[in-house]
Amino acid sequence: MSSAGKPLLGGIEAGGTKFVLAVGYSPTEIIERHEIPTRDPATTLAQASEWFEGQGAISTLGIASFGPVDLDPSSPHWGHITNTPKAGWAKCDLAGYFASRFGVPIGFDTDVNGAALAEYQHGAGKGASSLAYITVGTGIGGGLVHDGRAVHGAAHPEMGHIFPRRHNDDHEFAGICPHHGDCLEGLTSGPAIKARWGASLSELPADHIAHEIIADYLTQLAHSLIAMTAVEIIVFGGGVMKTDGLLERVDRRATELGAAYFPGGSKHKIVSPGLGQNAGLAGALMLAADL
Amino acid sequence: MSSAGKPLLGGIEAGGTKFVLAVGYSPTEIIERHEIPTRDPATTLAQASEWFEGQGAISTLGIASFGPVDLDPSSPHWGHITNTPKAGWAKCDLAGYFASRFGVPIGFDTDVNGAALAEYQHGAGKGASSLAYITVGTGIGGGLVHDGRAVHGAAHPEMGHIFPRRHNDDHEFAGICPHHGDCLEGLTSGPAIKARWGASLSELPADHIAHEIIADYLTQLAHSLIAMTAVEIIVFGGGVMKTDGLLERVDRRATELGAAYFPGGSKHKIVSPGLGQNAGLAGALMLAADL
Repeated sequence: MSSAGKPLLGGIEAGGTKFVLAVGYSPTEIIERHEIPTRDPATTLAQASEWFEGQGAISTLGIASFGPVDLDPSSPHWGHITNTPKAGWAKCDLAGYFASRFGVPIGFDTDVNGAALAEYQHGAGKGASSLAYITVGTGIGGGLVHDGRAVHGAAHPEMGHIFPRRHNDDHEFAGICPHHGDCLEGLTSGPAIKARWGASLSELPADHIAHEIIADYLTQLAHSLIAMTAVEIIVFGGGVMKTDGLLERVDRRATELGAAYFPGGSKHKIVSPGLGQNAGLAGALMLAADL
Repeated sequence: MSSAGKPLLGGIEAGGTKFVLAVGYSPTEIIERHEIPTRDPATTLAQASEWFEGQGAISTLGIASFGPVDLDPSSPHWGHITNTPKAGWAKCDLAGYFASRFGVPIGFDTDVNGAALAEYQHGAGKGASSLAYITVGTGIGGGLVHDGRAVHGAAHPEMGHIFPRRHNDDHEFAGICPHHGDCLEGLTSGPAIKARWGASLSELPADHIAHEIIADYLTQLAHSLIAMTAVEIIVFGGGVMKTDGLLERVDRRATELGAAYFPGGSKHKIVSPGLGQNAGLAGALMLAADL
């Protein structure tokens, strides 16, 4: 199957809650899209494969996955999920499963690196030198693109696990991160917000202190990213960011914290995803296209 | 002048306290080295030029400078120091001065990016994917190299200006950063240590709480760098780091803070400069060699 001779690409945004599947001729030309809930690996991967089999022959497949994952091309565990606490998924060989099922080359990266690549190339980062994509939802993660490439380092970023300075009116809550307690994810993820205030952020009244506290912690991530990497565009996505006014609070507070010091000046921008809900999926298709 | 036909490179590590000058045939083959104190720009740049004129004809010159600096190749102010508080040096056209004086191509970056490049290529980072070089002295700065290139982003990192979480026994001191008060530099630079305890860290008794507090703040920089960029090697240099036991404390505390969570695992290392005091100067020569 091809359009004007273009090969058909497959893409999987592998999330902890759902798998989003697509085929298309480029990251922005999606032909078919399908969602399945994330169950145990055997069930989920079989369902995903069945859907792709109904779409015609894909030439390559890109997987943008929840993590932690192994991204080391020289590792025997490349393309595996590693030590996730998500039941059954630790050591799951995602890339290997689809490679043997479809016999095509597999592109593989984290979901947030995929989203960052897609936003950099086709979304909020067009023309910029660098972009970070942060998701604030069930967990908090971030991907970073500099000069067109996802930053891997020794493995991949785990941005949710920095320790923000505690807000003056928020010293009681111990945080829910099983590894770090009151790291950013432990304080500011959707489940952390529910655990402390019994509701999602968007359900809390507009004058509830939660709005200020959560914005303050997320701003510290943005501020640190600018200080450490001088990243130009910071995209905030994920369920918690749908809260009215949150992005604007983070943007305003980042300006206060920076105190007009950083040499990048007004080049630094804090924005919503240009690709809306499709950043991760477009990223998966980019991983397929770049093979 | 040449050795086996190699062109002669010039290098300047332009610091706020001193300029270190060198000529050599490669970043690790330094022929002559010379230091001059940093006075006003006119005096300092003239003295530097006179020294180079006595060394024979250089083919290119690399400058690794204190900042903030303009690194945007499309900017009319490329190669300038920008808004430094250091008297007389704001808007100094470092690259332009030497380009017109010597008529050779100029390489230009921050002092810490230069040091990071040199450590990555010739020092503590040999064989690694990525490296950060942090200097803790009069100020705190950091440079970052991923996949062989210095990370610039919208301008360049200013790592000293993150906000570490305050240590439990350290809530009084307001910090000395004129921009951010108790940011990392405001709490942990050499002058900040002097301002609060009346002595340098190495002069304070081994059981003084200062050792634990300073190590804790520097560890938070290392932890955040790993979380945000997954950087493999973190090199700590600068005067404050000469304090006995400080690097070991930071390394130990980073292991505690990370809680064995990061997927890079034991690849992440916190070390002293492999090039000793010459990281910045070798970096300047790399900037010259890469033209």
